Amino acid sequence: MDDPDLPRRERLLRAARDLYWAQGVEGTSPRQVLEVSGVGQGSLYHHFPTKHDLSLAAISATTQEALDSVSGELTDTDRPPAERLVAYLERPRPALAGCKIGRLTSDRSVMADDELRSPVHDYFAGLVALVQEVFEETGLPDVVAHDRAYAAVAIVQGGYVLARALDDPAALRAAVDGFVSMLDPALQAGTVVAR
Amino acid sequence: MDDPDLPRRERLLRAARDLYWAQGVEGTSPRQVLEVSGVGQGSLYHHFPTKHDLSLAAISATTQEALDSVSGELTDTDRPPAERLVAYLERPRPALAGCKIGRLTSDRSVMADDELRSPVHDYFAGLVALVQEVFEETGLPDVVAHDRAYAAVAIVQGGYVLARALDDPAALRAAVDGFVSMLDPALQAGTVVAR
Repeated sequence: MDDPDLPRRERLLRAARDLYWAQGVEGTSPRQVLEVSGVGQGSLYHHFPTKHDLSLAAISATTQEALDSVSGELTDTDRPPAERLVAYLERPRPALAGCKIGRLTSDRSVMADDELRSPVHDYFAGLVALVQEVFEETGLPDVVAHDRAYAAVAIVQGGYVLARALDDPAALRAAVDGFVSMLDPALQAGTVVAR
Repeated sequence: MDDPDLPRRERLLRAARDLYWAQGVEGTSPRQVLEVSGVGQGSLYHHFPTKHDLSLAAISATTQEALDSVSGELTDTDRPPAERLVAYLERPRPALAGCKIGRLTSDRSVMADDELRSPVHDYFAGLVALVQEVFEETGLPDVVAHDRAYAAVAIVQGGYVLARALDDPAALRAAVDGFVSMLDPALQAGTVVAR
C-alpha cells in the first residue's frame, strides 16, 4: 500500500461494485461512482479514463473475488466432496439483493458488450467446472456430473430470482433444500442415480 | 373486436411487451412503444395516460398469459402427474432471450414499484403453487412437495441465467436434464425420497 494511488482506485472500484449491485451497470453513472467514493474527478479519469474501463475493472474484481471464494470452499480436500457440495449450496446468501453476478445477465450495457460479458461468462464457466469436478469426486460419471453441476449452479441463481420476485428470502432456501434433499441419497451412498 | 379502439390498445400492449422483454421496462420509453406499435400519440395517452399505466397493463398481460399457459399444461389430468412435471420442465424455452418474467426481477423500475411488482409476485407464487400440487399428486408429502416445487421453478429460472451468461442455450437444457435425472426414480416409483 505504498502506492498513494491505490486507495483511491480501490475506493472507486468499491463504489462502482456496490452501485452496480444495487442498481445495475446501465443505471449507474460515473458521477454517482464519484459521489459515493468521495474521490476527486481527476482521480477517476486518471485511473479509469472511460466508463467502460471502470465497468470492466469493477465487474472483473467482483467475479474474480467470487470465484476465488467459492473455489477455496469447493476444492478443500480436507472435507468429503458431498459435504463441500452441500456447503456450497447452503452457504448464506443475500437472497433479496440478488446475485451480484447473475443479475448482470439482465444488464443491457453488460450483455451488449463482449468485453464486459467476458468476466461474467468466465465466472459461470469456472463455477460450473468446479462443481462438476466435485460431483465427479463423489463417483458420478462425467456426463451425469456435467448436468448436475449446471443444475446446482442454476438452483442458486433461480433461487435468487424467486426470492426477489416473492420478496421472500425463504424462497431461495426452499429451492436449495428441495435440490439438496434429492441429492443426498445418491451422494451419501456414493452411488450413481443416472437417468 | 367490434370496439374500434381494441386493436390500437392491443398493438400498444404488444409493442410494450416485446420491448420490455428485449430491453427491460426501465430501458423502454413510451416514445419507443409508440414507434414500434405504429399507433398515434393520441391513442397512447387515451389508453394509457401514464407510463405506469402502460407498464402495469403490459406486465400483467405477460404474466397472466404465461400462468394460463403453464396452468393448462400442469393441470391436464389426462396425463400422469410425473409426466406433466417433466413436460413443464422440458418445454422448449427461448434460453438466450431469457424469461420475460424472471428478468423483471432485475428491472429497477419494476422492483421499486409495488404495483408493478405485484403481477410478478403473483405469477411466481401461482406457478410454485401449481407445481407443488402436481408433486403432491405424485405422492410426495406437502412439506417435500413444497421445497421441490421451489427447486423446479428455480431450475428453469437459473437455467435461463446460465444460458445468457454463457451465451449457450445448452446450459438451460443441462440444468433441466440434471434436475429431471434426479427426479425420475422417485417419481416413477411413486415413492417418496424425503431427506
